Amino acid sequence: MDLLSQTLDALRAADADAYQAAREHQTRLTKPMGSLGALEEVGNRLAAMAGQCPPPQPEPHAVVLFAGDHGVLQQGVSPWPQEVTAQMIANFLTGGAVISVFGRQMGSTLHVVDVGVATTIPDLPLGPDGTPAGGTLHRRRVQPGTADFTAGPALSREAAVQAVETGIDIAGELIDGGCRMLVPGDMGIGNTTASAALIAAFTGSDAQAVTGRGTGIDDAALRIKVDVVRRGLELHRPDPRDPVGVLAAFGGLEHAAIAGLLLGAAARRTPVILDGVIVQSAALVAAALRPEAMDYWIAGHRSAEPGSQVALGHMGLRALLDLGLRLGEASGGVLAVPLVQAAARVLREGATFESAGVSEAR
Amino acid sequence: MDLLSQTLDALRAADADAYQAAREHQTRLTKPMGSLGALEEVGNRLAAMAGQCPPPQPEPHAVVLFAGDHGVLQQGVSPWPQEVTAQMIANFLTGGAVISVFGRQMGSTLHVVDVGVATTIPDLPLGPDGTPAGGTLHRRRVQPGTADFTAGPALSREAAVQAVETGIDIAGELIDGGCRMLVPGDMGIGNTTASAALIAAFTGSDAQAVTGRGTGIDDAALRIKVDVVRRGLELHRPDPRDPVGVLAAFGGLEHAAIAGLLLGAAARRTPVILDGVIVQSAALVAAALRPEAMDYWIAGHRSAEPGSQVALGHMGLRALLDLGLRLGEASGGVLAVPLVQAAARVLREGATFESAGVSEAR
Repeated sequence: MDLLSQTLDALRAADADAYQAAREHQTRLTKPMGSLGALEEVGNRLAAMAGQCPPPQPEPHAVVLFAGDHGVLQQGVSPWPQEVTAQMIANFLTGGAVISVFGRQMGSTLHVVDVGVATTIPDLPLGPDGTPAGGTLHRRRVQPGTADFTAGPALSREAAVQAVETGIDIAGELIDGGCRMLVPGDMGIGNTTASAALIAAFTGSDAQAVTGRGTGIDDAALRIKVDVVRRGLELHRPDPRDPVGVLAAFGGLEHAAIAGLLLGAAARRTPVILDGVIVQSAALVAAALRPEAMDYWIAGHRSAEPGSQVALGHMGLRALLDLGLRLGEASGGVLAVPLVQAAARVLREGATFESAGVSEAR
Repeated sequence: MDLLSQTLDALRAADADAYQAAREHQTRLTKPMGSLGALEEVGNRLAAMAGQCPPPQPEPHAVVLFAGDHGVLQQGVSPWPQEVTAQMIANFLTGGAVISVFGRQMGSTLHVVDVGVATTIPDLPLGPDGTPAGGTLHRRRVQPGTADFTAGPALSREAAVQAVETGIDIAGELIDGGCRMLVPGDMGIGNTTASAALIAAFTGSDAQAVTGRGTGIDDAALRIKVDVVRRGLELHRPDPRDPVGVLAAFGGLEHAAIAGLLLGAAARRTPVILDGVIVQSAALVAAALRPEAMDYWIAGHRSAEPGSQVALGHMGLRALLDLGLRLGEASGGVLAVPLVQAAARVLREGATFESAGVSEAR
């Protein structure tokens, strides 16, 4: 059996008994009932994921950025040149990108996976141990970018599955290496266009409702982008009951790999924090393949892209942060890491009324 | 000149030139313009506070909990017995409270200031160095609790000023000791009632609009609480142009000390993250004394208490987090610490398009 089928087979829903145990334990901690708001739900869900209360502490964690290029870029959907995808990989690995800085703040290890970049990654300065200072590069390129989805499928089904399995592989490697939480992210010039198409396909939304300004395009470019998404939907007539078909229609390779990571982590009962619209659109692919996988995902933030709220709503997830971010590269997901860690920790280390000798309410 | 007057005299508005320099630097970092949303504003404001771009990293930070009791508790505004204030101090210092756990997650040092507790603090187990394991206790009790504000002023003007100056003192000690950001919080059974009265007094709101369920009271108790706040407002007819008078009318001692810390930190150009409704109501006192102090405050979270949004709106502050928390004890403020640190760090350590060799948008 292939790796994707094995993973889907192994994946089980989270544990309702552990969830209930955590819910009850929350009432014994030295705080008014429900006073930690959304963080109580996060803690209880972490217990359900692990099947134990208190849950294991979700540390250490890794940020995993999947990079790919997009044939649809030639339709004029972004003002950024394609080579920025590869240039940003170098920036991630030398430690200057926003996610590099945020990752240092949050104690992340950074992994970058070239799953489908179209150009050459610039040479990197290497440290004494032969690796770049800012993270680890995984050279797992399935093919150099996708095809333009307004002219035909972005990917063959085989390439789409290969990229999904790359994400499953990477999740397995990191979890085997001791990671207890994963924060996937993306890099790919043009990839909010593919995300909009995926979100429209899986949620049945209109192109207009889920297509946004991405890195900040003007009204004219936004009209082009909406039209591109609409033409793609008309050409492929995507069927959400065939998730791999939808993924192959629009791409990208990074979306496929992120979907794989999301499935692989869920099959290993490991929590994942979702970043913004790219990761959320990839999550729709994974959720369509196996809805139980959603039990293992925590929505880190709501992106400024309109598709973000549509995707989260479709999955019934509420984001922890809503800061108007629209950068991608896991920057919003990683900001939620300490919140998730705090939510677990209070279940593990918080005193109870009884243990602390604190009187309860009358 | 007394310490409060000195502090108000020393306090200066933040630096508009440094703000502008940070704003311009944001456009050179390797990210689309504006893509960090609310965090760009936080970073720019940190530069303005320090008067330099990039701003100094706001680390290390301290959580400072001010504890006091409330005479108005006898009106039946809370189901919790008064001795919980003192019991929770012991819980903070032995490390079992939510803020203790969150503080460990965020790398905080914890200080607890008894500025007006009415009962005896339980004996604490001390470590080999003679201090409790979970934090430092500052015994600065001005008096044991406030008087019932429905019968007369909660505090004399002298006691109110003494408590404010205690907060200024503590801010000075911590900043002299190397703290680069402060996160004040509260402990005091009954203190959301005093907060509601302060918020009503400074914003001109009706008691109903700013009085909430606090730790979770039922409808009948909420009606009592609203009536208590209303009777207090009718008795004292507070004049917001006399901030010390308003503070003395309603208390509490912890509100006064928090207002002092907020002024002391601002006079020392040190950022403060505001917690929920208690700290925000104290902030209204400090803002009324010296509006420029607001330049140094970052709203960490919006509490579930209705007065929180009213207070933040009055100060023109937008909260970073909105998680439905209603616990106090700086628990919401401390969760915002990594966000603020990340906002500063990206200005300090982020690569520019030029330095990273990344192409810009066309």
